[in-house]
Amino acid sequence: MYTLKEVAQHNSRQSCWVIINSQVYDVTSFIDEHPGGPAAILQYAGKNATAVFNATHPEGTLEELPKKSNLGPVKFVPGDRQPNAKTTPSTSAKEPNATPHLHTIQNLTDFEAVAKDTLAPNAWAYYSSAADSLHSLHRNLADWSKLTLRPRVLRNVSRVSLRRNIMGHASSIPVFIAPTARAKLGHRDGELCLARAAARHNIVYAASSYSSISHAAIAEEIRRERVVNPGARVGQGALAFQLYLPHDKEAGRGVIGTARSLGYAALVVTVDTPVLGKREADERFKAELEVEIYGGQLEGEGEGGVRRLAEPGGDEPVLRGYHSSALEWDDIPWIREAWGPGPLIMKGIQTAEDALRAADAGVDAIYLSNHGGRQLDYAPSSISTLLEINIFCPEVLGKVEVYLDGGVRRGTDVIKALCLGATGVGLGRPFLYALSGYGTEGVDKALQILSDEIETSMRLMGVVDLSELDNSFVNTAELERDLVSARSLQASLRTHHKL
Amino acid sequence: MYTLKEVAQHNSRQSCWVIINSQVYDVTSFIDEHPGGPAAILQYAGKNATAVFNATHPEGTLEELPKKSNLGPVKFVPGDRQPNAKTTPSTSAKEPNATPHLHTIQNLTDFEAVAKDTLAPNAWAYYSSAADSLHSLHRNLADWSKLTLRPRVLRNVSRVSLRRNIMGHASSIPVFIAPTARAKLGHRDGELCLARAAARHNIVYAASSYSSISHAAIAEEIRRERVVNPGARVGQGALAFQLYLPHDKEAGRGVIGTARSLGYAALVVTVDTPVLGKREADERFKAELEVEIYGGQLEGEGEGGVRRLAEPGGDEPVLRGYHSSALEWDDIPWIREAWGPGPLIMKGIQTAEDALRAADAGVDAIYLSNHGGRQLDYAPSSISTLLEINIFCPEVLGKVEVYLDGGVRRGTDVIKALCLGATGVGLGRPFLYALSGYGTEGVDKALQILSDEIETSMRLMGVVDLSELDNSFVNTAELERDLVSARSLQASLRTHHKL
Amino acid sequence: MYTLKEVAQHNSRQSCWVIINSQVYDVTSFIDEHPGGPAAILQYAGKNATAVFNATHPEGTLEELPKKSNLGPVKFVPGDRQPNAKTTPSTSAKEPNATPHLHTIQNLTDFEAVAKDTLAPNAWAYYSSAADSLHSLHRNLADWSKLTLRPRVLRNVSRVSLRRNIMGHASSIPVFIAPTARAKLGHRDGELCLARAAARHNIVYAASSYSSISHAAIAEEIRRERVVNPGARVGQGALAFQLYLPHDKEAGRGVIGTARSLGYAALVVTVDTPVLGKREADERFKAELEVEIYGGQLEGEGEGGVRRLAEPGGDEPVLRGYHSSALEWDDIPWIREAWGPGPLIMKGIQTAEDALRAADAGVDAIYLSNHGGRQLDYAPSSISTLLEINIFCPEVLGKVEVYLDGGVRRGTDVIKALCLGATGVGLGRPFLYALSGYGTEGVDKALQILSDEIETSMRLMGVVDLSELDNSFVNTAELERDLVSARSLQASLRTHHKL
Amino acid sequence: MYTLKEVAQHNSRQSCWVIINSQVYDVTSFIDEHPGGPAAILQYAGKNATAVFNATHPEGTLEELPKKSNLGPVKFVPGDRQPNAKTTPSTSAKEPNATPHLHTIQNLTDFEAVAKDTLAPNAWAYYSSAADSLHSLHRNLADWSKLTLRPRVLRNVSRVSLRRNIMGHASSIPVFIAPTARAKLGHRDGELCLARAAARHNIVYAASSYSSISHAAIAEEIRRERVVNPGARVGQGALAFQLYLPHDKEAGRGVIGTARSLGYAALVVTVDTPVLGKREADERFKAELEVEIYGGQLEGEGEGGVRRLAEPGGDEPVLRGYHSSALEWDDIPWIREAWGPGPLIMKGIQTAEDALRAADAGVDAIYLSNHGGRQLDYAPSSISTLLEINIFCPEVLGKVEVYLDGGVRRGTDVIKALCLGATGVGLGRPFLYALSGYGTEGVDKALQILSDEIETSMRLMGVVDLSELDNSFVNTAELERDLVSARSLQASLRTHHKL
Repeated sequence: MYTLKEVAQHNSRQSCWVIINSQVYDVTSFIDEHPGGPAAILQYAGKNATAVFNATHPEGTLEELPKKSNLGPVKFVPGDRQPNAKTTPSTSAKEPNATPHLHTIQNLTDFEAVAKDTLAPNAWAYYSSAADSLHSLHRNLADWSKLTLRPRVLRNVSRVSLRRNIMGHASSIPVFIAPTARAKLGHRDGELCLARAAARHNIVYAASSYSSISHAAIAEEIRRERVVNPGARVGQGALAFQLYLPHDKEAGRGVIGTARSLGYAALVVTVDTPVLGKREADERFKAELEVEIYGGQLEGEGEGGVRRLAEPGGDEPVLRGYHSSALEWDDIPWIREAWGPGPLIMKGIQTAEDALRAADAGVDAIYLSNHGGRQLDYAPSSISTLLEINIFCPEVLGKVEVYLDGGVRRGTDVIKALCLGATGVGLGRPFLYALSGYGTEGVDKALQILSDEIETSMRLMGVVDLSELDNSFVNTAELERDLVSARSLQASLRTHHKL
Repeated sequence: MYTLKEVAQHNSRQSCWVIINSQVYDVTSFIDEHPGGPAAILQYAGKNATAVFNATHPEGTLEELPKKSNLGPVKFVPGDRQPNAKTTPSTSAKEPNATPHLHTIQNLTDFEAVAKDTLAPNAWAYYSSAADSLHSLHRNLADWSKLTLRPRVLRNVSRVSLRRNIMGHASSIPVFIAPTARAKLGHRDGELCLARAAARHNIVYAASSYSSISHAAIAEEIRRERVVNPGARVGQGALAFQLYLPHDKEAGRGVIGTARSLGYAALVVTVDTPVLGKREADERFKAELEVEIYGGQLEGEGEGGVRRLAEPGGDEPVLRGYHSSALEWDDIPWIREAWGPGPLIMKGIQTAEDALRAADAGVDAIYLSNHGGRQLDYAPSSISTLLEINIFCPEVLGKVEVYLDGGVRRGTDVIKALCLGATGVGLGRPFLYALSGYGTEGVDKALQILSDEIETSMRLMGVVDLSELDNSFVNTAELERDLVSARSLQASLRTHHKL
Repeated sequence: MYTLKEVAQHNSRQSCWVIINSQVYDVTSFIDEHPGGPAAILQYAGKNATAVFNATHPEGTLEELPKKSNLGPVKFVPGDRQPNAKTTPSTSAKEPNATPHLHTIQNLTDFEAVAKDTLAPNAWAYYSSAADSLHSLHRNLADWSKLTLRPRVLRNVSRVSLRRNIMGHASSIPVFIAPTARAKLGHRDGELCLARAAARHNIVYAASSYSSISHAAIAEEIRRERVVNPGARVGQGALAFQLYLPHDKEAGRGVIGTARSLGYAALVVTVDTPVLGKREADERFKAELEVEIYGGQLEGEGEGGVRRLAEPGGDEPVLRGYHSSALEWDDIPWIREAWGPGPLIMKGIQTAEDALRAADAGVDAIYLSNHGGRQLDYAPSSISTLLEINIFCPEVLGKVEVYLDGGVRRGTDVIKALCLGATGVGLGRPFLYALSGYGTEGVDKALQILSDEIETSMRLMGVVDLSELDNSFVNTAELERDLVSARSLQASLRTHHKL
Repeated sequence: MYTLKEVAQHNSRQSCWVIINSQVYDVTSFIDEHPGGPAAILQYAGKNATAVFNATHPEGTLEELPKKSNLGPVKFVPGDRQPNAKTTPSTSAKEPNATPHLHTIQNLTDFEAVAKDTLAPNAWAYYSSAADSLHSLHRNLADWSKLTLRPRVLRNVSRVSLRRNIMGHASSIPVFIAPTARAKLGHRDGELCLARAAARHNIVYAASSYSSISHAAIAEEIRRERVVNPGARVGQGALAFQLYLPHDKEAGRGVIGTARSLGYAALVVTVDTPVLGKREADERFKAELEVEIYGGQLEGEGEGGVRRLAEPGGDEPVLRGYHSSALEWDDIPWIREAWGPGPLIMKGIQTAEDALRAADAGVDAIYLSNHGGRQLDYAPSSISTLLEINIFCPEVLGKVEVYLDGGVRRGTDVIKALCLGATGVGLGRPFLYALSGYGTEGVDKALQILSDEIETSMRLMGVVDLSELDNSFVNTAELERDLVSARSLQASLRTHHKL
């Protein structure tokens, strides 16, 4: 058994020990293999990393380390004070009184304000960051505001229905939880909160490939929730599986098979991430941490885990992130086959050209998204892509279902999307923020707010069923001005699609 | 007789006493029947509620309580200090010197600034709040600014006339007081201030269904003012009655009949409020108060008067507000019949489609409004609806009179509306703000300012009579860009109106 | 002789004494006749009014008072301290070091910043104020920014000429000093500064009807300057006379005749001021002063010199300001006749319709202006009116010369106007601000800056003579979007001009 | 040898000594010949000017002074403290800890923030200043944001190529270092930093005529860097020579010949600078310095080195700057001849009209630029000029190569330009700012960032080679709205180009 003092001496690349759950680990040989990069480990060298470790890793991760790295329990000596870890995760950082009472939360933006105030800096950086100059991030929000509504009066709206079929599931509202990674950064229960709330509200939750809770545990939780939740029925809530294709095709088949066998009812294949976008707030946070830890060693290059991203002339391309950058249209058939029957959704379509092509590619639905503005900056907002399709190739809307996400904050946003032909609307960050502040209750409240806003807005629009919504209920003049011109789009279709 | 100390012990849902006008009341059994919700009572449990009660209830309300609830006068013991009520209403909160001298008020926006500074928080929240993200609220103001004027020079404008027939009344200016609820929140004389000022300036005042002074007292006051006001003539000022249809048709007939018999000269039927909009500033104020009062009891749901707004799957729909959500076009004939001859105005039209339909529905006038941005957010401003009608279906302007309100702050706004075909223009909040700061004198001054602005602007436009105003005096280019496209509107008319 | 103490006792409406230039005056009987209103006098009752009096009145004003009102010189007693006048004019208020050195002034906006910092509040309010919500004021500036330039390269620009014929005068630059009132508020030499600078730069100065220096003295000064200014030539500088027509036609003929006989070379008839606009900053300043002086007396109406602007139903219309509000197109012939040969310019044209009419009305030039945004708010900027003419009725540019003012701050602004067909461009406030901070030297520097900017910009545009400038050098796309639509303008011309 | 005390007495125009590199110089007779103006010297009269001198002059400048002006070394007396020079240049002013670690720099804008914080005021004023009201400066940045991207998904992008032929050089990225003057203001190594980084990244560096390092030394450095830089190959990096034509044609031929003989591979002739623009921040800095130095002497004109820019009526035109203002289209042939074979690029084209003319003028490429907004304010951004050409005269893109600079800050900006037909994109200020904070390493990092952004964006766009980029990948709707109208441009071409 080692004392804190002894552990503290192993605080370098040459000998790196950390304390997790009162056990001492020697992770020296593991530093360079850490998927999250060496810096994430080295900042805790010689220190207690329990809090941040548990907050960012799925259960069972510790068990994957080689047995011999566990040096046994730490020996606390009277008077010892644990050396503080630099980045304390949000769950412990929150002062009990700092978070406003959930009852006072009025809308989804309130959750964001709470999260900004109470999340740990690294969690806020990861959740809120977006590509480059944040143009797409801001446009995602702004473009919804450019659409206005055209309500009708004097219709009997005493009873309204918000039901809609989403990814094969009879959802209670035209909304689903969009895939987002690493929910444990926000709350210790992580993705479980999302699963529980989806079950309670009988909606679809599309779990990310990068969940911080295992996909099996998520699937288990949604089933459990159906039982414990008073008034639950069979069929309440459903799961979709968001897939990043790995480099290896067989590995891909394996993941798809696992998702199917765990009971995920729909497959959402992300096609906009051959590399990761440049999310500067996140990268800045890491760089500043590295400077603090490595100090002068960074003067040269390549030292201390700091790599140049693009080595000119190297043989192997250096990519941002770890996904396949070789995924192409020809891969869709084998993915379709591997998944078998059931909803297959292509996520990340951003132009009318690709929507046209996708509509003939054998998928059940396309999912318009610019990845929350985290991939290509200056990519169009999903609502503007929907309008592009609505105007230039409305036939797509008859061939495949259309989903979208990005910047949705209000029930009126959902209604606008449905007016233009969307089947359902996803939200990502708002649920993460709700979960960060309030766990499952937060997500539950967020869905309750959205549901109330949609219902109230339907009545004020003079419609009692979502199927009544069409182009005539929305004024698109302002957003339409910024669409690609018909002249330009037709030239593109002639050139690239041989139309 | 009870001492303050004894009263203070009855401060719960189980036993709730309050002091009003030095009398003790046991209101325990009334808590759940309170139209304003239980919280509004419970916050004063065991306390002196005199100030806030008198400020928010019409005279005679206290008399409607069961006799036995009055436990007799409070017994003041020497040294007693009244427990302070939390929300002190504006009338007592105003420091004598805090309000700028009325003489320095230059325009209607000045009144708003004064009200913001001096009103009690609950009153400001109620008056100023609007739906959701306040888009329509802000658009209401911004859209007027998008219209510019095209004045003509070298016309003899030494004498001008501002007279116009408004809702059947020979009004001295093309302006009326739009319906707004709960004027007592702003001033102890409440709606009486509005009635007096309407009489002095010989204009129409459309009293709200939700007036905090009885409709009979309002009608009485406008008649009295005609007598005491030096230089008054018969016919000076007129009343219209704004109607929210109750659920029960017979109750509706009753209200209409009462309005008629009290001498209200026009009936304004509101058609944009099947449910109340989500006015967050107002709801936030209430929620924060509830948290302060109920504390930990709010953790679960349904406790302490806090209800979920939409109970999914319940048998009875839970609606925002208490109006009929079943009102439809087929109801217009019986309303017409119940009202009999005299101006019948349909308030809340927001699209060309509905304007076309309303023009054939047997009403005398349509009243374009988005309810001050308090109902559906992203609804069009009334001036943009007017422009939509002016361009796409100008025949409506020949069939019915057109009124509008929303965001009007200047004489030039009034002139712009008249250029595009409006008969008259209503203002709501500006008069409430004027009344909050200065009572009747404030409303009087507000009308005087508006009148001067209209008159000065007419001279600077080169017109001597309002009938000269037409499209050629206003440049609509900027607002026109944001109108629904002709293509889209024609498709809508084909689909929904079988044109 | 009276002591300060004795004078101080005569501080009311009943007995009102003031000290001017060390003399005591009893002005009690004059209070109600004061053209500037009683308040302007009463605030100095019992006090020393020397500074403000001298700053706001032409020489010789004091001599117009009845002899007996002069009570003799004030008697200073050792230890006496003059009671401070409330509003100290800028000339004495300026701290010697507060004003930046003239050498550091880079552009016309710098002068405005200096003036804002150093002018007395009443002077700043009068100079800077504009109508209502300041929309036209701001638009005047913004609209220039909407035009961009299209420069040409590779042209020999070693020598350029900035000469242009302005109102019949061979001006050294295409710029003139626009009429502005009350220059003494800014500097004790008042309009003389403007006359001197006009002479030095050989440009036209259009003196206002409301000059605070007599028109004779202005005319005398420009002649004198020609002599004392080294290198001056005969013909250097010229005067135009800006005319507000008085109510009485004969009085009008008289003024015109006087202007002619004093040597004013052009007559600028203002046609946009049948009444004064509502300049709130100015009116607010006066109202706040009145409240401070009259206090409680203002509660009622009509007391203390505070009048309601529009008395409804009165026999005589109450107008803002003192000009004729009956001036009309039929008056132009007699004005033309009264003035005789020489440039006659109609100032205040704001639409294509009126430009077309004016082009046939017998004037030599039209002068596009919205009066610096001080008359009708939401009136178009002059540059947008010029563009309206340029596009919809370019024939006007062939019939009459076109001048304009409003928001001009840069040499590039001047060039933009000339590209669209203007003959010359006037500036008002910038010269007042230059004069306020630095007297004649300031105006001189302002003209030098403008001249340099125009010359530099011409070279960078690739032109050597102003006559080369045409539509091809300016991109009007952004401003053109906000013009009245062709459809709307043509309808207007058909209706109002029988075209 | 003189002591500091003795030197300090020679602090006037009459006798002006300065200390440079511990030597005393009598520069009295040189004051008026100083190319940077007398003020730049006089502020150091009697003082130590070492730091600012070295930072702003090329090596060897001191040697050009007459021998006799060197009065020998300064004699330091114990206890002497050097009199501080007023403007300390950035290299010495930077606190070691004030500059953020280079590793934390995420993008090119970060470099600008660092430079603003750490540069000396004169250097920041010189680098950042732009013409007049900074409209073009801001538009340069804003216009890029108006273009949005239209990415395509599902393309194999594992390998991408960023190579492009720039000014005859096989560049590793489609970017070059645009010409900027006076790099020593930012860093003591000045232009050498730019040359080194260009070599390391194998791109083109276009050295300014006004480099603060001699053109020979720059050429030498890029050759040396090829040797010392590990992995360097022959052909790595290339130089272009930016030319301001002097007044004298023979002098021009001389400069061109020298550039050729020093190994500069391309000639960039600037055609937008017949005079210098009015860069107010820079001029204001100088004026304030002059006021501080000359004080009261500035009251009159012409004293103390302060000249009026435009002397009206003088025989010789007074121009801003020292270039030829007579350069014209007819000069192109002899320049072509003097330069001989090899890329000849015409820099400063700003309209379609001039692009059309230049395409037939015998140059290899046109370079769209508004000189960083430093010449004519309200000139179009280069990206809007490129769009103008792309739409109205795309044939130009087939005849000559097109380069552009101005406001480029992101890899996505580069891609947008290439989509619209540009061959390569230049950046100026960002490299100066990188160099100011971090010398060569800063420029290196800036290029590395750009390269990474371009590569990442290409993958996210779905393209693997720059030649795939075309109009279909960019949405130009927003920028297109602000282009000159087709109607207007066609009229211009008819009038000015006889088309």
